[in-house]
Amino acid sequence: MTGLVRFTVSIEEELLAAFDALIRDQGYQNRSEAIRDAIRGRLIEQEWEAGDEVAGVITLLYDHHRPGVAETLTEIQHRALAYVIASTHVHLDHSNCLECIAVRGEARTIEELAHRLKSLKGVKHGALTATSTGKKLS
Amino acid sequence: MTGLVRFTVSIEEELLAAFDALIRDQGYQNRSEAIRDAIRGRLIEQEWEAGDEVAGVITLLYDHHRPGVAETLTEIQHRALAYVIASTHVHLDHSNCLECIAVRGEARTIEELAHRLKSLKGVKHGALTATSTGKKLS
Amino acid sequence: MTGLVRFTVSIEEELLAAFDALIRDQGYQNRSEAIRDAIRGRLIEQEWEAGDEVAGVITLLYDHHRPGVAETLTEIQHRALAYVIASTHVHLDHSNCLECIAVRGEARTIEELAHRLKSLKGVKHGALTATSTGKKLS
Amino acid sequence: MTGLVRFTVSIEEELLAAFDALIRDQGYQNRSEAIRDAIRGRLIEQEWEAGDEVAGVITLLYDHHRPGVAETLTEIQHRALAYVIASTHVHLDHSNCLECIAVRGEARTIEELAHRLKSLKGVKHGALTATSTGKKLS
Repeated sequence: MTGLVRFTVSIEEELLAAFDALIRDQGYQNRSEAIRDAIRGRLIEQEWEAGDEVAGVITLLYDHHRPGVAETLTEIQHRALAYVIASTHVHLDHSNCLECIAVRGEARTIEELAHRLKSLKGVKHGALTATSTGKKLS
Repeated sequence: MTGLVRFTVSIEEELLAAFDALIRDQGYQNRSEAIRDAIRGRLIEQEWEAGDEVAGVITLLYDHHRPGVAETLTEIQHRALAYVIASTHVHLDHSNCLECIAVRGEARTIEELAHRLKSLKGVKHGALTATSTGKKLS
Repeated sequence: MTGLVRFTVSIEEELLAAFDALIRDQGYQNRSEAIRDAIRGRLIEQEWEAGDEVAGVITLLYDHHRPGVAETLTEIQHRALAYVIASTHVHLDHSNCLECIAVRGEARTIEELAHRLKSLKGVKHGALTATSTGKKLS
Repeated sequence: MTGLVRFTVSIEEELLAAFDALIRDQGYQNRSEAIRDAIRGRLIEQEWEAGDEVAGVITLLYDHHRPGVAETLTEIQHRALAYVIASTHVHLDHSNCLECIAVRGEARTIEELAHRLKSLKGVKHGALTATSTGKKLS
């Protein structure tokens, strides 16, 4: 972590009051934290657009009764070992499973892996959550 | 417009440097303007979620050769006169038209109108752009 | 427009019933139209990602009392004449204006133009709506 | 799972060719699977909008060196035991942690929990990934 600095924002009084009400609702304890979160959110979007090394989570909802789906998911993840860090399997009910796969790598590679997993037969829904390795965010 | 006030943000030095680089690329002349834009963007999302009175633009791409589509679009807009402010028709090529419809009203009503227009036969693509009447944004 | 063809989708009975209810709510008269809309929506995303020639709408909310903002907006649009097709100005109230600018050009160029307009002082909110020239969508 | 049925989509020849190219790139083996995925994606959006019982993943990026952050995260999750199913902690580097929290409950409750976790000091980035319990998706 690097040293802390300060900067001043000039803003219309009413606009600031509306912002204060908004962030209080979302649980923020002060404006600086909310502003830093907004800034980090923008920088993460930029990391993904630029194709940088990123981190993310691939979320899959699937029916483990569908023949072959669990095996194929495991096999693809093992072949993508360089990008897949860990994966958690949650049993939602008798048939439905939720799998969260933590991944790290170049943005385009991660996006391709997510597409491949989402398009598998038996996978009902898939989503790629974009976050960061955090290296440039402090 | 209300009076201007100031507040201070404390932030890690490197994070601020990354933010400065990002907003310079996007054409901002100073941090305050970029921060105010981010704040107003969040407040507009909140106005739409809360179902407030909002403004927006419905963008439609359609083929004016499809029988009836232009007439139906005009008719629906006239019946929604209370919400439709103005509409601009652009000729993209021999068949394709782009129509931008400026609207104002309660968020749910505007969303329904957008759905109705987008689902018409002959309309190839439709999008609702969420913005604000601006009343609470200064 | 090219000739019509048909293809068959196999689907779980309950899933189809849920889809039918959803599209009925959104005003679709038949499944084909809803499916074609979903397909065109995906293709438009792809055109923007690939940096193809696209069409779009830049929506700006601004306060015309802010000195210089209207002139600067007009000047930037004139200098971007190759991309700006038409622009509609709507008076929301005494101070607030909504401007819809129909644009066409390469995706990256359009995105830059939108950034430049959104970051101007006096512009309270800006949004770029992505649509298509429609050439490849029929 | 319910029985399979079939329905026919009529579509312009060129539009279908563009769709086939798109889904081939994304790894789909046939059109039915791609269409079913698009349908399920829309139904999941609707479940969240309606405030139904849903499943999701809260992804957090944080610096475990920040005093108190790990303890607070654990404490909030334990108090939200009714919604938190499991959580996986990944060590990205010396300071940065990625945590994937699988959750289930009413959409509004899950959204509030995500806001609370994201707004904590020390949490650099947070995202809520919307998926489904899968009950209505087959």
